[in-house]
Amino acid sequence: MTSLDDLPIRDDLRGRVPYGAPQQAVPVALNVNENTHPIPEDVAHDIVARVAAAILRLNRYPDREFTELRAALADYLGHELAPEQLWAANGSNEVLQHVLQAFGGPGRSALGFAPTYSMYGLLAAGTGTEWITAGRDDAFELSPATAVAAVREHDPDVVLLCAPNNPTGTPLSLDTVRAVADVARGIVVVDEAYIEFAEPGTPSALTLLGGRPRLLVSRTMSKAFAFAGARVGYLAGDPAAVDALRLVRLPYHLSALTQAAALGALAHADEMLAMVDEIRHQRERISIELARLGFDPYRSGANFVLFGGVDDPHAVFQALLERGILIREIGIPGHLRVTAGTEAETTAFLEAMAVFAPNRIGA
Amino acid sequence: MTSLDDLPIRDDLRGRVPYGAPQQAVPVALNVNENTHPIPEDVAHDIVARVAAAILRLNRYPDREFTELRAALADYLGHELAPEQLWAANGSNEVLQHVLQAFGGPGRSALGFAPTYSMYGLLAAGTGTEWITAGRDDAFELSPATAVAAVREHDPDVVLLCAPNNPTGTPLSLDTVRAVADVARGIVVVDEAYIEFAEPGTPSALTLLGGRPRLLVSRTMSKAFAFAGARVGYLAGDPAAVDALRLVRLPYHLSALTQAAALGALAHADEMLAMVDEIRHQRERISIELARLGFDPYRSGANFVLFGGVDDPHAVFQALLERGILIREIGIPGHLRVTAGTEAETTAFLEAMAVFAPNRIGA
Repeated sequence: MTSLDDLPIRDDLRGRVPYGAPQQAVPVALNVNENTHPIPEDVAHDIVARVAAAILRLNRYPDREFTELRAALADYLGHELAPEQLWAANGSNEVLQHVLQAFGGPGRSALGFAPTYSMYGLLAAGTGTEWITAGRDDAFELSPATAVAAVREHDPDVVLLCAPNNPTGTPLSLDTVRAVADVARGIVVVDEAYIEFAEPGTPSALTLLGGRPRLLVSRTMSKAFAFAGARVGYLAGDPAAVDALRLVRLPYHLSALTQAAALGALAHADEMLAMVDEIRHQRERISIELARLGFDPYRSGANFVLFGGVDDPHAVFQALLERGILIREIGIPGHLRVTAGTEAETTAFLEAMAVFAPNRIGA
Repeated sequence: MTSLDDLPIRDDLRGRVPYGAPQQAVPVALNVNENTHPIPEDVAHDIVARVAAAILRLNRYPDREFTELRAALADYLGHELAPEQLWAANGSNEVLQHVLQAFGGPGRSALGFAPTYSMYGLLAAGTGTEWITAGRDDAFELSPATAVAAVREHDPDVVLLCAPNNPTGTPLSLDTVRAVADVARGIVVVDEAYIEFAEPGTPSALTLLGGRPRLLVSRTMSKAFAFAGARVGYLAGDPAAVDALRLVRLPYHLSALTQAAALGALAHADEMLAMVDEIRHQRERISIELARLGFDPYRSGANFVLFGGVDDPHAVFQALLERGILIREIGIPGHLRVTAGTEAETTAFLEAMAVFAPNRIGA
C-alpha cells in the first residue's frame, strides 16, 4: 500500500496532520463554538424557498460577483457601507486566505498575538506567508503599547487582530486597533467573528474604516447567525482593497446555494440574532459559576469561555465526554474552553464540572 | 479615492484583471460550456428536500470529511473505487488548487499543453507554482511522443492533462496518459471535466488508477450533471494522495448545503445525465453544419466545439451578441468556441453563423 511518504508531497507538509477538532456525535457538543440553537423554523422555510428557486437554475454558473449578497451584507452591517466595500467567501477562513494571497504570500509576513485563532498560522503556511506571533499582556489582554511594539519590531505585511480573541474570548479595545492601524505599514485585519456576542454597546472596528484604506474587518455568519454549516464569511473594507481580492479568488467561488441561503438569513437578521442575548446570558452564567467553583475564567466577549485552574485538563475533558459533553482542549496547560450553549446544555456542563471544582466541599 | 496601486498588493498581482468571461443576461448563452438544460423537476424536488433537511441543522459545522458524499461519488464512478479514494471541493478549480498546494507550490512546477484550460496557469500562479506550457500536435491533438518529450524536457512536479481538452474539445487517448504516467516523476492529473460527453465507449483514465499512486483523475458535476451553480468538483486517486489533500484544504470547505445537494443529484445520476446524449447530438450537428458552411471545426469529445476559418472573430462575436447569442472568444486568431445547447439554441446559433459562412452563396 502506498503511504504519504511514497508521494512527492511538499517537504513542509511532511509529517503534518490535518487541522480540526474531532467530530463526534454527542448529546452536548460545546467544543467548536457553534451556535447550539437551530435556525428559527419560519426563517428556515424562507431560506428553503430561496434555495429551491436557485436549484431550478443550478445548471448555470452563479453570479461571480455575488452582487445581491454584497448589498445585503452592506445593509446588515450599516455604518453607511456600500456594496463594493463588501467581500464574501466560503467561511471567514477563505476570506482570510484571500487577504493573505493578495497582500501576504512568499517573501511576506503576517503577525498575530498568541494564543490566537489557530487557523491563522495554517492559512499563512498555506499561502507561503511567514507567520510571526507576538505575546499578549496578563490575562491574554492586548494593550495598544504591547501591540504597537510588536508591529514596530516585526514590520509585518499583514496584522491579524482577533476581536474578541479566540480561544481566550478576550475583547479588544478600539484603542489597540487604532494604534496598530496608525503604525502598521501593511494590511490590518480585525477578525470580528464573535463580535455580536460582545457587551451591548461595544463599538465595532467598522467605525474605524473611514480614511483607513488598509484596514479590513472580517465577520462570519457561522456564529451569531447559527450558519456554520452554510460556510459564509465576509469582510468590509476600502473598495480598492476589496477589489484586490477578486484577483486571487477562484472564479465562481460562492455557489448559488450559498448566495441564496445567505440572502434568506440576512433578510431575517433580527430573528436570526434573537438567540444572541440568551447565549450571552449563558456565557455570563458560565463565568460566574466557574469562578464560584474555584476555576479561573477569563473575561469573554464571545460565545465561549476559557478557564484556567484545571489540574488535569485531559482527565476533565475525558470525564465530561463520558457524560456526553464535548468541550475543547486548546493546548494551554491547566486550561479548557467551553462554548455557551442553551440553558440546558450549560446546566449539564456546569453540573459535570462541579465534581472537579477546586472549591468543592472536601477538596 | 484609494486605488489598487496605493495598496500593498503583491507585485505579481499588479496590473492584473480578474479572470472570467463577461456574465451577461442573454436569451442564448453558449459561452461558458454550461449544460443549458435545467435539472429535471422531480430530481430538483428531491434535492430541495435534502437541502431543507440540512438547513434544519445549519447551525452546526458540516461533516469535514464529507463521508456520505465520498461514498456516493465512488458509487457513481464505479471501477471498484473506495470512498477513501475520492475527494471533493467547491468546483474542480478548488480540487486542482488543493493538488497544486500539496504537490506544487514555491520551487515546484506544473506542465500543461497549450492551448488548454486557462485556469491552470492562474491556479499555478495562485499557489506559487511555476507554470510551464508545451505545444500540441496538429489540430491540437496530443500524441504520446509529444507529451513524453515535454515531460522529459521540463521534468515538472505536476502534469495537467485536460481530457477532452478545453478550449479545443480534443479527446485525449489513454495511450498518452499511460505514457506520461510512465515517465513523469511527479503527480499526473487527468482533468475529465467533460468526459461524459465523449463518444460512448470511450474509456476513462479511471481505468488506469490501479498501480499508479501518482495518477489523479478530476471530474466536475458542473457540466454533464447540470450543476455549475452548486460548485462541486471531485477527484479519484490513491488513498494516500487523497489524504495529502486534507493537509491543505480549509477545514469544513464543503458546506452542508453543497453536500446535501450533491448527494441528491448523485442519487438520480441516470436522470441527471439523461440530457448528455442530446447535447452530444447537438455538438455533432454543430460540427457538421459549421463544416458545411465552410468553417473548420475541430474534433470534439466535449459539450462545445472550437472552430477556425473565422475572418474576424470579434465581429462575429458582436454580431451574434446583438442577436442575443453569446459565444466565446478564446484568444486563438481566427477561432471561436460555442457550447452545444438545446436544439433550439443550436438552431439559433447556426442560423446566425450562416451569414458569416465562407461557403455562403455569393461569398
